[in-house]
Amino acid sequence: MGENDDSEIIEHHVDEAMEKKTRQRSQTRSFLESVTSSERDGHSSTQSSHRLLAYSDALISIIATVMILPVAHTKIGEHEELKESFQLLLATKIAVYLMTFLIVTVAWAAHIRLFQVIERIDDFLALLNLACMMLITFLPYTFTLMATFPENVLGILLFCACVMVIGLIQAVIVIYGFSRPFLLNEQIQISQDQAYFKHHILKVIMRVPIMCLFASIFSFIFFQLSYVILAIVIFLPYIAQSLKWCKAKAIGQPLEDEPDAVLFYTYHPSEPLSKERVEAFSDGVYAIVATLLILDICEDNVPDPITVQEKFGGSLVAALRGYGPEFLAYFGSFATVGLLWFVHHSLFLHVTRASRLMGLFNTFSLAFVGGLPLAYELTTEFRHDPRNAAEAVQASCVILFFAGIFQLAIWVAALFDERQTLHPLVRYGGRDHAFMLAKLALYPCVSLGTYFLTCVLSEFSASIFHLMQLAVPVAFLLLRLLVGLSLVLLRALLTALRKTPEGAAAAAAAEGGGLMEEDEEARVPYSDVVS
Amino acid sequence: MGENDDSEIIEHHVDEAMEKKTRQRSQTRSFLESVTSSERDGHSSTQSSHRLLAYSDALISIIATVMILPVAHTKIGEHEELKESFQLLLATKIAVYLMTFLIVTVAWAAHIRLFQVIERIDDFLALLNLACMMLITFLPYTFTLMATFPENVLGILLFCACVMVIGLIQAVIVIYGFSRPFLLNEQIQISQDQAYFKHHILKVIMRVPIMCLFASIFSFIFFQLSYVILAIVIFLPYIAQSLKWCKAKAIGQPLEDEPDAVLFYTYHPSEPLSKERVEAFSDGVYAIVATLLILDICEDNVPDPITVQEKFGGSLVAALRGYGPEFLAYFGSFATVGLLWFVHHSLFLHVTRASRLMGLFNTFSLAFVGGLPLAYELTTEFRHDPRNAAEAVQASCVILFFAGIFQLAIWVAALFDERQTLHPLVRYGGRDHAFMLAKLALYPCVSLGTYFLTCVLSEFSASIFHLMQLAVPVAFLLLRLLVGLSLVLLRALLTALRKTPEGAAAAAAAEGGGLMEEDEEARVPYSDVVS
Repeated sequence: MGENDDSEIIEHHVDEAMEKKTRQRSQTRSFLESVTSSERDGHSSTQSSHRLLAYSDALISIIATVMILPVAHTKIGEHEELKESFQLLLATKIAVYLMTFLIVTVAWAAHIRLFQVIERIDDFLALLNLACMMLITFLPYTFTLMATFPENVLGILLFCACVMVIGLIQAVIVIYGFSRPFLLNEQIQISQDQAYFKHHILKVIMRVPIMCLFASIFSFIFFQLSYVILAIVIFLPYIAQSLKWCKAKAIGQPLEDEPDAVLFYTYHPSEPLSKERVEAFSDGVYAIVATLLILDICEDNVPDPITVQEKFGGSLVAALRGYGPEFLAYFGSFATVGLLWFVHHSLFLHVTRASRLMGLFNTFSLAFVGGLPLAYELTTEFRHDPRNAAEAVQASCVILFFAGIFQLAIWVAALFDERQTLHPLVRYGGRDHAFMLAKLALYPCVSLGTYFLTCVLSEFSASIFHLMQLAVPVAFLLLRLLVGLSLVLLRALLTALRKTPEGAAAAAAAEGGGLMEEDEEARVPYSDVVS
Repeated sequence: MGENDDSEIIEHHVDEAMEKKTRQRSQTRSFLESVTSSERDGHSSTQSSHRLLAYSDALISIIATVMILPVAHTKIGEHEELKESFQLLLATKIAVYLMTFLIVTVAWAAHIRLFQVIERIDDFLALLNLACMMLITFLPYTFTLMATFPENVLGILLFCACVMVIGLIQAVIVIYGFSRPFLLNEQIQISQDQAYFKHHILKVIMRVPIMCLFASIFSFIFFQLSYVILAIVIFLPYIAQSLKWCKAKAIGQPLEDEPDAVLFYTYHPSEPLSKERVEAFSDGVYAIVATLLILDICEDNVPDPITVQEKFGGSLVAALRGYGPEFLAYFGSFATVGLLWFVHHSLFLHVTRASRLMGLFNTFSLAFVGGLPLAYELTTEFRHDPRNAAEAVQASCVILFFAGIFQLAIWVAALFDERQTLHPLVRYGGRDHAFMLAKLALYPCVSLGTYFLTCVLSEFSASIFHLMQLAVPVAFLLLRLLVGLSLVLLRALLTALRKTPEGAAAAAAAEGGGLMEEDEEARVPYSDVVS
């Protein structure tokens, strides 16, 4: 429940009201003066950045996801074995997809941090941001070039050029923002050492472009090194953070004491990732993935009028019957993606802020969600060959399992720091804790069950899979009822156990699993938790 | 600037705080009781519908736009004339695209109205909404079938079946919502005659499915009639409204006196269309259109390693040189769509509420924006044939002109009722009036100019077009400066004219064009206007 954002928006509202007052005062100048001084008077033409960020999120999520299309469109020869082609596919196209997804997500995270510093925009910044977006959307092509011609330096050079230009544009945005302090985040606006902030942010922003500059120079000497540098660029923030975490655990020193160290990667220590933007990005990915298959269906599954006349005697129904499994795959895929979105939505309703680790797990989950259309296409393609069909269904189950398990991981990561990240209702011991666990665990459990069932009953794999698709939405509808029932049963069992003295200890231990007496925390008013 | 929404969100915030208090009180019951009564206790599991609506907007905007892909992918034979193929294309695929766009927008408008009544959701409603979305995304396929087999009833039957099921699901949503009044809009919650509202809304919702039922029955007897009925379904709301407007103008009776008549189509008279959702839908369309071309580029424009080795002697740069125009087309299309989004964004920053007419113009503008990738693909495809190239460039200019002119139409429609719909700054006589006009008029003017230039200098059409693409972003950067300068010049001219007595009248008349003395209205605090 967006209280977190709401309170921000309310603050904004108050800000804007204040701003209006000052503007009114300044408008006592004559109109002629205000027209000629339109450059100086830039303040009143600033805008809330909300919609610009929503549009950027939409663009970035589309770009992150569409690279699954070349993978899904790879035609596997009729006589080849699925396994062999699948390995070939894994080697290049899936790697391109995953690399694109990760690098685009890194660019998106950098974009979030940048616009946490610059909170208001004007026309110039909006246009600069669009230029930045244009280059980000071009990144997948450079990756495709790299994967197709791994020994040619052109792909690396193009990629590095894009990243360097993006870095330059972002630097211009920062310099422009600091030259007009009313565009900045309030915390920086009121701080004494704006110059320090500016140099620090510029340093962080320019780090990646400078590494890319080195990578492009090395590409002429020893191109393998360039790939190593690029891999470092992508994973460095995560590696550095986990190293720091390990070090802190080893020494036993709390992390909170180093504001500068936190600032080092986030440059805005108070808010790790904007929850609103994580939601917008995830929505974009889920929406694209849910609709990718209808795109193919509209293009490929409309029979040719002449074929219908000749082959099926003019009967369109007979002609369409052959496409049945494709339609089933579409509805199945849409339902699965829709339900995964539903689980994500339920989880983030109770998330009050998203830490970087949660963001990382969310990215991994989304990357697997993006693979679902591929899995479904495989299951329809191999429906006539029972051996390959079983393998295709198993691949679907694996993808689904990972998509679900990483969603669960977001919640587990949130539970480690639950006072900061979760609503009391779903915290350890909260009233909806068990229900949330059931929601998040449903897909991993079902996909695991389907996987093992298809191993045993491989000739019925397609039927089992379709049955699972039908059963899961019903399971979600009945989930609250089922969880309630099982809690009551467990409670009855516990009270029965408690009558024997040795059972009391076991009962107390079991109560930890979401069954505790109403926690005091669950009664803390929500606003107290947020503020 | 989202104050309108902000105030709503603040209200929400207050609501939720209130709600929490009541919930706290009810939580004095024992935990066991609250678990067993989870069904009765549905109130606390309700959620703000914000994210559900954002996700629905994303899905609907994608579905509305992707149908341009089959159009863009239509391969035009090498030896045919562009005109002939273009007419063939116009006849079917573009018709499918436009019909899909319009019907999906109608479904979207119905969705807005439904969730203006039901303002909070729970898990059951979220799942029902996903089922509804699944059927909406299937509509384009039924249209493709209708266009390919116009004389076969199957397409009509499938379409009608989808619409009827969507209607039934929406009816279930309404009945469920009214059985749990805390889910409803506050205005309806406090009203005395909820039963009247419920029946009225159900009647409005079921009207379209019932017409589809008739259409499907008639399709067996006389299928042309079915198409007529379907056309009525799409255009009836607009026709009815314009008839009512004409009648009101003819009699001279104000429209506001008939709350029931307004209720008839909107069933929530106070808020015509949610501005936030119009923005979200538009963002989705712009984002998809901007990235459609990169999708093709990543799939088609990566040369085959063997071809590079054999044809270009292993030089990747030489192989890629042939794709140059495609890249130019991508960047050109991205920049154009991005700038159109920018204009839309600037306009809607100053729109306080969106009337139905503005929504209609917005839909038309978006439908033409969706056609841009097609136009750009045409310009690259015919670059070697000067005669066809000129025609392709002219087609692009026409599409661009209509996309821009309908954006201008949104503003003009808003100006007719400016106290209700616009921020004082851009109202007639406001300080940014002239600047907004310049922004909105730039694309129509430029595309019109390019069109006539290519008519005269048809052999240079491609170069003129590319030059235009480069010039427009620069023009946007300099626009504020240019408008300021021209206003100063105009003002100097006016003061010179005013010295002669007969010039004074002309000066006063000319001042109407956005040049008036600072209007008193521009100083009204913003919050007063909104509330």
